[in-house]
Amino acid sequence: MKKKKRIAFQGCRGAYSESAAYYLFGEDIEVVPMNTFEEIYQGIETLSVDGGAIPIENSTAGSIYENYDLLYKWRHPIISEVLLQIEHCLCGNNGASIHSLKRVLSHPQGLAQCSNFFSAHPGIEKVAFYDTAGSAEEVSKRDNITDGAIASTYAAKLYGLSILKTNLENIKGVNFTRFYGIQKNPVGIPYNAEIKSAILFELANDGQAGSLYGALGAFAKREINLTRIESRPHPDKPWGYIFHISFIGSPESPKVIEALEELTRYTTFIYRLGSFAVGKTERLKYED
Amino acid sequence: MKKKKRIAFQGCRGAYSESAAYYLFGEDIEVVPMNTFEEIYQGIETLSVDGGAIPIENSTAGSIYENYDLLYKWRHPIISEVLLQIEHCLCGNNGASIHSLKRVLSHPQGLAQCSNFFSAHPGIEKVAFYDTAGSAEEVSKRDNITDGAIASTYAAKLYGLSILKTNLENIKGVNFTRFYGIQKNPVGIPYNAEIKSAILFELANDGQAGSLYGALGAFAKREINLTRIESRPHPDKPWGYIFHISFIGSPESPKVIEALEELTRYTTFIYRLGSFAVGKTERLKYED
Repeated sequence: MKKKKRIAFQGCRGAYSESAAYYLFGEDIEVVPMNTFEEIYQGIETLSVDGGAIPIENSTAGSIYENYDLLYKWRHPIISEVLLQIEHCLCGNNGASIHSLKRVLSHPQGLAQCSNFFSAHPGIEKVAFYDTAGSAEEVSKRDNITDGAIASTYAAKLYGLSILKTNLENIKGVNFTRFYGIQKNPVGIPYNAEIKSAILFELANDGQAGSLYGALGAFAKREINLTRIESRPHPDKPWGYIFHISFIGSPESPKVIEALEELTRYTTFIYRLGSFAVGKTERLKYED
Repeated sequence: MKKKKRIAFQGCRGAYSESAAYYLFGEDIEVVPMNTFEEIYQGIETLSVDGGAIPIENSTAGSIYENYDLLYKWRHPIISEVLLQIEHCLCGNNGASIHSLKRVLSHPQGLAQCSNFFSAHPGIEKVAFYDTAGSAEEVSKRDNITDGAIASTYAAKLYGLSILKTNLENIKGVNFTRFYGIQKNPVGIPYNAEIKSAILFELANDGQAGSLYGALGAFAKREINLTRIESRPHPDKPWGYIFHISFIGSPESPKVIEALEELTRYTTFIYRLGSFAVGKTERLKYED
C-alpha cells in the first residue's frame, strides 16, 4: 500500500487550514497539526512532512505577513492554491440548544464576525478563545449544555458536537482565505488550467523615483494581470524591501519570459516561488 | 499659563512612542498613555487629547498595519514625522550588575535583538514580557539585584533603574521606527523644509491588468519619488484593496497637482492624509 503524504498545517485538528490541505494535496493525505507556521517550513526542509498548507491572505483581515516572510526565508516551491470560504456554525454538546447556552467560545475574530447573533441573544456571553477549532474541542471536553462554540462545521463534527445553526456570520459570502500548498521540490506546470505565478524580488534602486514603476511596467506593457503586490522589510537591510508579486501567466509563455527578462533591469535578484493552477473558491468539506 | 497639549501614545510610560511624541509635537507637552492604538484615534476624535504619536513602520519588523487601517477609518490629518533609532540598554536596580543578574525581562523582539548577549551569558535566563518599558517598570517593582530588563535608557531612568550596558543589541544602527504625529485639524505646510505627502486611494479597476501601473505612472512620469506603497484589505469589499502611498513633494507644487489630477483617472476616490516635513532620524532623548 502506498504511504499517504503527510501534510502539515498550523493549528489544532479541525482548523480551516486542515480543510484547505485536502484541496491543496488531495483527499488521500495524513494531516499533521503544528504549533507555528515556521515548524511547517522546517518540517518540509527536514522531510519530516511531505508538504504544508499555509494561509497567505484573508479577504477581510488582509495578508498573513508571517508567511510572506517565511516564503522568502525558506523558498519552498508553491505547487497549488485554493480560496476557502470561511463559514462559521454555532455548535454545542448533545442536548444543547440556543436556549440552553449561557456562553459561547471562539477566536475573537470569529466572535466579531458573528456579533449580530450576540446582539439578538444578550443572555449569551462571548468568551474569547485562542483558536476557532480549539473552542469546539474545549466545549466537547466541558460536556455540558451551557457552553457552545463558533467554529467550522468540520470542527463541530470532528469533536462530536451538534450543529445548532449554520452560517452564523453577520454577512455571508464575504470571508475567504487564500491558501498555498508548499513542498520541498517543484512540480510540473499543469497544462490544462489557467496558471498563476508567484515571484519575489528586490529592486535595484530602492527609493529611486520610478524603480517600482519600471518593474511593474514589465508586466503592464504586456497586459499581464498582476493579482497581488506586497512588500515586506528586507531582513538584512534597514528600510530595504522584498517585493512579492503574483500574476496570471505561465513561465513558458513568451510574454512572461520577456517580462521576467525585462524585470532583471530593475532588480538585484528575482526568485520564482512557483507556477500553479489558479485557485478555485471552495466551501468547507466534511463527512456527513 | 498656556495649557500644555495632551499627546496620546500606545503603551506604558517610557515606551519608544512616548519619546517620539516629543519630537512630533515639541517638548512642551503632556504625554497620555493609552492601552490600544484605536483609543488614540477615539481620543483625538472626541478631543479628550490634542494629538497622537503612532508608529507606522519599523525598519526590521515592517509596517504596523493596524495604524494603516486606523488612518483609513478615522482620517485624522498627519502633521509630522520622525524616525527614531531604537537602542536597547540593559538595566537593573541599584546594586545590580551583569554578574548578579539571574534573569532579564523584555518584549520578545527586544530579547531576540539582543540574543548575542544571552549567548555570551548562558547563566542569565530570558523572560518574555508584554512590553519593553513595562519590563523596566516590573524590575523596578521587584526591587532586587537578580532581575534586569532590556528597555530604552529613557525607560530605565523613568523607573529609577541603573544602566548596566548601553546598546545591547546585536547589530547597532539597523533598528529604526518611523512615527507620525496626528491630530484633529490639519496644519499649514512647512515652507522651509522638504515635504512628504501621504495619500490613500482605491483603484477604479481593481484586478485589471495595469491599473496600479497606471496609478504609479502619474508619479513616475513626473519623477515624483514614492517613499512607500502599502495595500490593505478594503473593509467593505472582499479582495478589494485600499492603497497607501507616500511621496516627496508638496501638494502646492505644479507636478504634484498634475499627478493627483491624473491619478483620479485610475481611482474611485483619493484621500489626502497630510503633507509634512520629511522626518529626521533622531536618537532617544532623556534627561540626565
